[in-house]
Amino acid sequence: MARKRYLKKTSLKEAQHKFLTKFADYELSTEIIKTSKTKGRVNSKAIYAKRSSPDFYASAMDGIAVRSESTNYASERDPVLLKKDDDFIYVDTGDLIPDDFNAVIKIEDVVEVDQKTVEIIKSIPIWNNIRSIGESVIKKQMLVPTNTEIGVFEIGAMLEAGVVEVEVYKRPQISVIPTGSELVKPEDDLKKGDLIDFNSTMIDLLLKESEAIVKKLEIVKDDYQIIKEKIIRENKENDLTIILAGSSAGKEDYTLKILSKLGKIILHGVDIMPGKPLILAEVNNKPVVGLPGYPLSALLDFHLFIEPLIKKWYGQDSYLPEKINAKVLKKVPSTPGLKEFIRVNIANIEERLVAIPQKRGSASMNTLINADGLLPIGESKEGIRPNSISKIYLLKNKKALENQIMMIGSHDLSIDILRDLIRKRRSEFDFKIQSVGSMSGLISLKRGECHLAGSHLLDPVSGEYNVSYLDKFFSGQKLAIINFVYRDQGFIVKKGNPKSIKSIGDLVKKDLKYINRQAGSGTRVLFDYLLDKNNIDCAKVNGYDKEEVNHISAAIQVTRGRADTAMGIKSAAVAVGADFVPIKKEKYDIILKEELLDDLRIKEIIKIIKSNEFKKEVNTLGGYDTSKSGSVIVHS
Amino acid sequence: MARKRYLKKTSLKEAQHKFLTKFADYELSTEIIKTSKTKGRVNSKAIYAKRSSPDFYASAMDGIAVRSESTNYASERDPVLLKKDDDFIYVDTGDLIPDDFNAVIKIEDVVEVDQKTVEIIKSIPIWNNIRSIGESVIKKQMLVPTNTEIGVFEIGAMLEAGVVEVEVYKRPQISVIPTGSELVKPEDDLKKGDLIDFNSTMIDLLLKESEAIVKKLEIVKDDYQIIKEKIIRENKENDLTIILAGSSAGKEDYTLKILSKLGKIILHGVDIMPGKPLILAEVNNKPVVGLPGYPLSALLDFHLFIEPLIKKWYGQDSYLPEKINAKVLKKVPSTPGLKEFIRVNIANIEERLVAIPQKRGSASMNTLINADGLLPIGESKEGIRPNSISKIYLLKNKKALENQIMMIGSHDLSIDILRDLIRKRRSEFDFKIQSVGSMSGLISLKRGECHLAGSHLLDPVSGEYNVSYLDKFFSGQKLAIINFVYRDQGFIVKKGNPKSIKSIGDLVKKDLKYINRQAGSGTRVLFDYLLDKNNIDCAKVNGYDKEEVNHISAAIQVTRGRADTAMGIKSAAVAVGADFVPIKKEKYDIILKEELLDDLRIKEIIKIIKSNEFKKEVNTLGGYDTSKSGSVIVHS
Repeated sequence: MARKRYLKKTSLKEAQHKFLTKFADYELSTEIIKTSKTKGRVNSKAIYAKRSSPDFYASAMDGIAVRSESTNYASERDPVLLKKDDDFIYVDTGDLIPDDFNAVIKIEDVVEVDQKTVEIIKSIPIWNNIRSIGESVIKKQMLVPTNTEIGVFEIGAMLEAGVVEVEVYKRPQISVIPTGSELVKPEDDLKKGDLIDFNSTMIDLLLKESEAIVKKLEIVKDDYQIIKEKIIRENKENDLTIILAGSSAGKEDYTLKILSKLGKIILHGVDIMPGKPLILAEVNNKPVVGLPGYPLSALLDFHLFIEPLIKKWYGQDSYLPEKINAKVLKKVPSTPGLKEFIRVNIANIEERLVAIPQKRGSASMNTLINADGLLPIGESKEGIRPNSISKIYLLKNKKALENQIMMIGSHDLSIDILRDLIRKRRSEFDFKIQSVGSMSGLISLKRGECHLAGSHLLDPVSGEYNVSYLDKFFSGQKLAIINFVYRDQGFIVKKGNPKSIKSIGDLVKKDLKYINRQAGSGTRVLFDYLLDKNNIDCAKVNGYDKEEVNHISAAIQVTRGRADTAMGIKSAAVAVGADFVPIKKEKYDIILKEELLDDLRIKEIIKIIKSNEFKKEVNTLGGYDTSKSGSVIVHS
Repeated sequence: MARKRYLKKTSLKEAQHKFLTKFADYELSTEIIKTSKTKGRVNSKAIYAKRSSPDFYASAMDGIAVRSESTNYASERDPVLLKKDDDFIYVDTGDLIPDDFNAVIKIEDVVEVDQKTVEIIKSIPIWNNIRSIGESVIKKQMLVPTNTEIGVFEIGAMLEAGVVEVEVYKRPQISVIPTGSELVKPEDDLKKGDLIDFNSTMIDLLLKESEAIVKKLEIVKDDYQIIKEKIIRENKENDLTIILAGSSAGKEDYTLKILSKLGKIILHGVDIMPGKPLILAEVNNKPVVGLPGYPLSALLDFHLFIEPLIKKWYGQDSYLPEKINAKVLKKVPSTPGLKEFIRVNIANIEERLVAIPQKRGSASMNTLINADGLLPIGESKEGIRPNSISKIYLLKNKKALENQIMMIGSHDLSIDILRDLIRKRRSEFDFKIQSVGSMSGLISLKRGECHLAGSHLLDPVSGEYNVSYLDKFFSGQKLAIINFVYRDQGFIVKKGNPKSIKSIGDLVKKDLKYINRQAGSGTRVLFDYLLDKNNIDCAKVNGYDKEEVNHISAAIQVTRGRADTAMGIKSAAVAVGADFVPIKKEKYDIILKEELLDDLRIKEIIKIIKSNEFKKEVNTLGGYDTSKSGSVIVHS
């Protein structure tokens, strides 16, 4: 069975250069459109003012128009009297100054003697307070040079200068072909094994943002002949053709074969991550791009290759997002030979910006929507050393990031409720959470990566939660412990508990499959504690090896039959429609440095945790006790 | 005659606070729309995932799905043979993993023995290369908290999670009423005294950018009763009503009076410049805003008051543009008690960013479209001292600004051609020019505000151009002189030269009106030199006092009959359809620091100046000699 491999290694810079220079001379045709419709478009010719504005002498003030000479000797001791219509007229800002007047005195300096007479106590120099002809725009002057992206200000200036039509480049026509027999539309019913095509919608919207006309085709099954016909036709009718998900190296991926037949492959595979499985080809002197199937790969390739191409066609430079410096506190490994872009959160901890890497993978839309920036690691590097200052491309507003509260720690469904209430109350800060388990949360707090750590770590000796771990990690430091919730931990089981699981001893039954939580999570600590207390060898628990990082995903494995039970919180069981066998009521706390208690954002968070609204919403999840929620203890 | 003055002084902060808190609780209603249409909209409820993705075990690789156990003892010396369908199946990325397999070996590690058999030389741990259920999004997890501005990533995540409809706030309906008897539409024929209404188009476009539904009314004449009726009706039907140009203190400005009658004035006049004459009012618990007539005032008030209000209604924070630090080299005066926003250009001169203030005034659209940033000066300050580091709000891309070439100096029409050719050739830098006269250009170059100075200064003694001035300003410094053009200076006269002007001696004729250029401009130096040489007292030149800052605006005065002649370049006469009496051929040079000759951008500029394309275009303007254009002399 012949399987295509990537052709050869190509660095990002080399790949961009190859692709962009190849199609740099491709010419968009032009069209003439109304000036008021040109926002975001690019003019193909310089635009000159057709008239001056103002094109008459106009008053720059509200006041009276006079002859400067008639005020020459005015003083407080010797005021000058002026007669209406003969010596002056009233004018407002913008009013025409008749030819026989040559200055304007502002109304505040005019004393009205009677209906017909005013008194002036100061002379006014000639041409004072009169707008020059062309003060705003001057006839025949170039307003907008060729190849300018037209904005609101340009539109205003052109209209003022009598330019009511503009020659602009036509928008490039771009066709998007989603391919894949496993793909279905978002509104379709899913069969097992189906995947929803949402990449095509994202690419469609991004292309429109780049001022392209998009033709988005229906999903095409993996059929060599059909895909080939589509590409031939779309290539003929459009400026650029994008094939989605046709670029991994799998058996159903015909894109590469078809493009080699129809034209020339410029490159297959670029040394970046995500985004590696990219195909760039030329068919009939037009570009055809095969974007990877994983959304994060497709999006990065879009921003690195397709967006700059469209910009180039419009005669524009393209810029990556704004970069900031942030400290990366822990080691970030990377693969030499690949330029990696790692999603990070950003927090302002004790007056310095830190970047906290999120979990990797090209497939997690949830991390993408919560990411604040991208940390690039060059292909020549093996990673980033702890405490390095690194450049980060921003995905969110910098000021918002400087003000957001970062929480790292254990997963709990009521954290989402807290986060939502912060937004709902329109508090002036954002709240981000990375769910990594209790232990990692405390380590992050210690390291200075977050404001808050979420933890429910049981001390096997004392039976207390969290306190002994704080002593261990933070000896001598003053901390605050905000009680977040108490919650029921236990066994999540299938509806009706068919395997009759009642206690930890039942887990060693031969036909029983367990699903575990990751090491360092509070739930794992609890589970290991229970095994130990009951003298059960973990090797006897079938499935002890299989870890999930989240209560809900563990619970889902149970409802799907992949496991018979998982240890987790009741609210997760309720959420997925499973049953629940309670084992222990545990305490989930939020830990922070004591001095942060004075921070207005923390005060607001405590207020929300104490609120009836929060408690009511949490209690509908099931398995929570909020009677102590929001109580604060200082620990040192 | 009663004339309204501003009510009382209000600082920007106070005004914003008053306005925004007043209408903070105004509630937008909501609607349910398709997820794919939500870009830029704001959700009014938290959005939870309706399903997990993937919601089955899926391959993370192209390869074969196996039972991990069957590979346990595989090694190079002792490979394991696996049979197709029994022991493995081929899978591609994203494919469903059947229940009896639990790991995927990537295709690169598979050796195909025959059609039915593969060989494995390395064991694969359980669950390796299998995507977890919910790897991308997990059912029941909160994807998007309330009050989030929805972007492309959120749309992708929602679609993947089965969310095909979203409850979002309805767009606020905003009515824009342009008022003013002097206003006409851009496509109308203008009578003398008419002004084009383009503010309403700019505000319309900005409102749409802020996700509002805009109802833009036809221009309303200054008629108390009609304006009142319009306001009553628009206030009833819309969430916000904006009256344009109804807020200066003039006799035709009824807005204030009407709004006092219909509701309550929140404030009239805010202590900022531009933007002072603002009216904020409340009518039937809804905001009504009177924006100033000057475009720059209206735009600033829009960004400081209206945009934040809409953001607030959507539950969003609003942020001013990105700020950078730049050095301000010369003194910038400002008015204590007023917060000023001064338009500046920004250039990267010798590795530091400098900000160069543009000419003031709220009316110049031409400076606005060429501005790179806004320099704010606090109300408690009297200005900015030379060599201060100041914060600048960016109006353009920072990287583009860091790379742009800044020229300051004398005005010439062929500069526009150079600027246009730089864009036309898609050179990777922008080119900005501030026209301030030759002398000011050299001073700016000396001060470090620009890369290039444009100068045509005649030395009365030697008859040479520029050189003696360089010796004076830059003694000892190595400079380069690029010849830009030679051009004809002379008298711009009405068609047919009705006053028979032939030489400078004719300017003292009694019935003759002259229009002058500003002190420090090369043309003024030439004119003064000619007066001196011919022993003419400047007091005898009628109009010597009236200065224009630009060849074309001076020429326009002549065609309008405001003056009989002006000294200027032939191309300006040609541009406005005037006649021309040549007096002197002069040399216009571009001056720069010698070391800049190595800069690739400067090399490109010289190449363009030397090009036939440039010379051809310049020569169509009339009165130019380009035979030496682009020649370089080093001067020290």
